[in-house]
Amino acid sequence: VTDFIPRYSTPDSNRQVILARRPDGIPHAGDFETRVAALAKPEDGQFLVRNLYLSADPAQRGWAANPSLTPVGAPMRALAVGVVQESRDPEVAAGDVVYGFFGWQDYALATKDDLLSRISTPRVPVSYYAGVLGMPGVTAWLALNDLAPLIPGDPILVSTAAGAVGSIVGQIARQRGAYVVGLTGSDDKIHRCRCRFGYHAVFNYKAGDFAKTLAAARPDGFKVYFDNTGGSILDTAIRTMAKNGRIIQCGTAAIASWNPPPQGLRNEREVLMRALTWSGFYIFDHVARFGAAVDKLTDLMLTNGLNHDEEIDHGIEHAAASLEALFAGTNLGKKLMFVG
Amino acid sequence: VTDFIPRYSTPDSNRQVILARRPDGIPHAGDFETRVAALAKPEDGQFLVRNLYLSADPAQRGWAANPSLTPVGAPMRALAVGVVQESRDPEVAAGDVVYGFFGWQDYALATKDDLLSRISTPRVPVSYYAGVLGMPGVTAWLALNDLAPLIPGDPILVSTAAGAVGSIVGQIARQRGAYVVGLTGSDDKIHRCRCRFGYHAVFNYKAGDFAKTLAAARPDGFKVYFDNTGGSILDTAIRTMAKNGRIIQCGTAAIASWNPPPQGLRNEREVLMRALTWSGFYIFDHVARFGAAVDKLTDLMLTNGLNHDEEIDHGIEHAAASLEALFAGTNLGKKLMFVG
Repeated sequence: VTDFIPRYSTPDSNRQVILARRPDGIPHAGDFETRVAALAKPEDGQFLVRNLYLSADPAQRGWAANPSLTPVGAPMRALAVGVVQESRDPEVAAGDVVYGFFGWQDYALATKDDLLSRISTPRVPVSYYAGVLGMPGVTAWLALNDLAPLIPGDPILVSTAAGAVGSIVGQIARQRGAYVVGLTGSDDKIHRCRCRFGYHAVFNYKAGDFAKTLAAARPDGFKVYFDNTGGSILDTAIRTMAKNGRIIQCGTAAIASWNPPPQGLRNEREVLMRALTWSGFYIFDHVARFGAAVDKLTDLMLTNGLNHDEEIDHGIEHAAASLEALFAGTNLGKKLMFVG
Repeated sequence: VTDFIPRYSTPDSNRQVILARRPDGIPHAGDFETRVAALAKPEDGQFLVRNLYLSADPAQRGWAANPSLTPVGAPMRALAVGVVQESRDPEVAAGDVVYGFFGWQDYALATKDDLLSRISTPRVPVSYYAGVLGMPGVTAWLALNDLAPLIPGDPILVSTAAGAVGSIVGQIARQRGAYVVGLTGSDDKIHRCRCRFGYHAVFNYKAGDFAKTLAAARPDGFKVYFDNTGGSILDTAIRTMAKNGRIIQCGTAAIASWNPPPQGLRNEREVLMRALTWSGFYIFDHVARFGAAVDKLTDLMLTNGLNHDEEIDHGIEHAAASLEALFAGTNLGKKLMFVG
C-alpha cells in the first residue's frame, strides 16, 4: 500500500477509500483508490461521526455492483462503528457510539437514516457493534426467530458455519437444544466451529465425499438449513432435508456474480416432494427492529454467553483488499479495519 | 390399438394396462401393453371395485419411474372412480362410489389403504370425483388454504392455468377477490381460461415476449405464484414476484425427467432479496384430510359454482397414450378413460 497517509498527520481532512471502477463480481483491491477530502461540518439534522472500525461485509459485493448505492468516485458504501464528534441532531449526542452506513472513510456526515444503532453506554467492546451485535448478529437472531422454530433435538444445518452470521446462528441454535451441524471450508475453521461455537459436527464442503458424508450424518434429514452460501452447497444440502423442513436463505456467498444469473441444479422438485418451506431473509427489510434486537442480543451475550471472534487490521489502507479476503474465506473472525 | 377386447365379452376377466418397460421421462404409449387377467374374489378386509373412469394424472410420470410403485409387468398405478361390486370390509358397502388407487384396469381388489374418498350418495356426476372433487381439486383447495392467504385485490399468478389443478385454483382465487393471472400454452386454452375459469388476464408462455409481457402485466409484482410447471416458466415468474411474495410449488410438469436433475437459473438470490416464501405442497401428505376437503369442495361447487371441463375417451385402450397427450398439453379438460 503505497498511498497510505497516517490519520494523525491530517487532522482537518478525511481519508476515503473510493470505488475507482465498477467491479466484475467480487470487488478486488484494484477496484479502489484512496483519496483525502476536506472535512465538512454538520448542518442542521446532521452529525459528524469519527469512525473507529470500518467493516467488511459480504453484502458489499452487491453494494459495489449497484451504481445507485455506490457511484464510481464515491467512498465505498460500508458499515462502521464510530463516535459522534459533533451533532446538530437533537436526538444524537456527541460521545454516542453509533453503528451505521458511514462508509470506508475516517469521518462521515450522517443523518438518522444512516443509523442502525446508537449506544449511549456500551456494555461490550465497541467493535462488537459491527459483528455479533451488528448486522451479522442481528441477522442471525431475527432470521432464526422469524423463520426457524426449533425444538430441542431438531437437527439444523448451517453454511458458512464459522462466519460472522453462521457462528451466531450455531451458538443460538445450540442454546435452544438443537443438534447443530456446520459446513465450512478449512481445518482451521472446523476447529473454531467445534471449540468456539459449539457445533456438534462440522464438515468441509470442499472434501470429495461431502454429499455422502452429509447424508450419512443425519439419515433422517435436517429440519432446518440456514444457508449463507447458495450454489452447489445449497444443491447438496437441499437433498438432505427432512420432510416439511425449512430453508432460510440469508446469503449467497458462493456465487461470484449474479449478472448474468448462473445455472445450477433445478431444486423445485425437492421443494415439492419434501414439502419444504424456503424463505428469504433480507436484513435491511427489518431495520425498524434493529435496536431492540441489539438489546436482546447484548443480554444474551452477557448471560448465556456468545463467543465472537474478530480479525482486525489496523489502518484504513487494508480496506481495499478486505472483501477479496472475505470471499476467499481466509479470515478467522469478523473482518474489521481499525482507524481510530 | 390392435389388442382391444371389449369389456362385455369378458365378464369373468380383468383387462389391465401394464407397464411393459420402465419409461425414460414421460411415459409413452409404447411403454404399456394390455393383458387380460383372471378376476379374483375379495378376501376378508378387501372389496372389489368395478372401475368406471380411469384417470390420467401428471403424477403418474413419477409413479411409472419408481419400481416400488409400479413394477414392470404390473398394472399401471393410477387413480380411478368406480363402484364397489362386492365387499368383505364391513365399512364399505356394495354400491358405494369410490375414488382411489385402483389402477388402469377394469376391476381392482382394494383395501381401505387404496381409498381417497367414498361417496354413498353422489351429488354430482361421478366422474367429477376424479377431477374437481378428486386429487386435482383437493390439491388446489388445500394448497390455497394452507399456503396462500389471499386478500381481495392480491395479484396471483397460476401456471397450467387451464389444467385440472390450475383451473380450480383460478376460480377459487377469483371467488376470494384476487386479481387472477394465468399462464397457458395455446389460444384454445387462453379462451377457456377467460370464458370458463374467470381469469382476469391470461398469457401464452410460448410467446416470444413472455417475460416482458408478464412483468408489464403487474409492475408491482405478484403476491402469490401457484406453480404447477417448474422450469423456465418458474424462472421467469419468480423474477416478477412482489416483496414477501409466496410461491406454492405444486407440480413440475415442464420438466421431462428428473434423472439426472436438469440445470436452470439459480433462484436463491430472488428468494433472498424479495424475501419470498417458497413452499412445496405434495397432496399425498394430506390424505387424512381428503374426505373433508371433498365435502367442502362439493358444497362450493353447488353454491358458488366451479366450472369443470372433462375430456373423456371411451375405452381402456386409450389409457396407454393418455400421459403423452397430457404432457403435450393437448387435452382440453380433465383426461379420463370411461370403461364402464
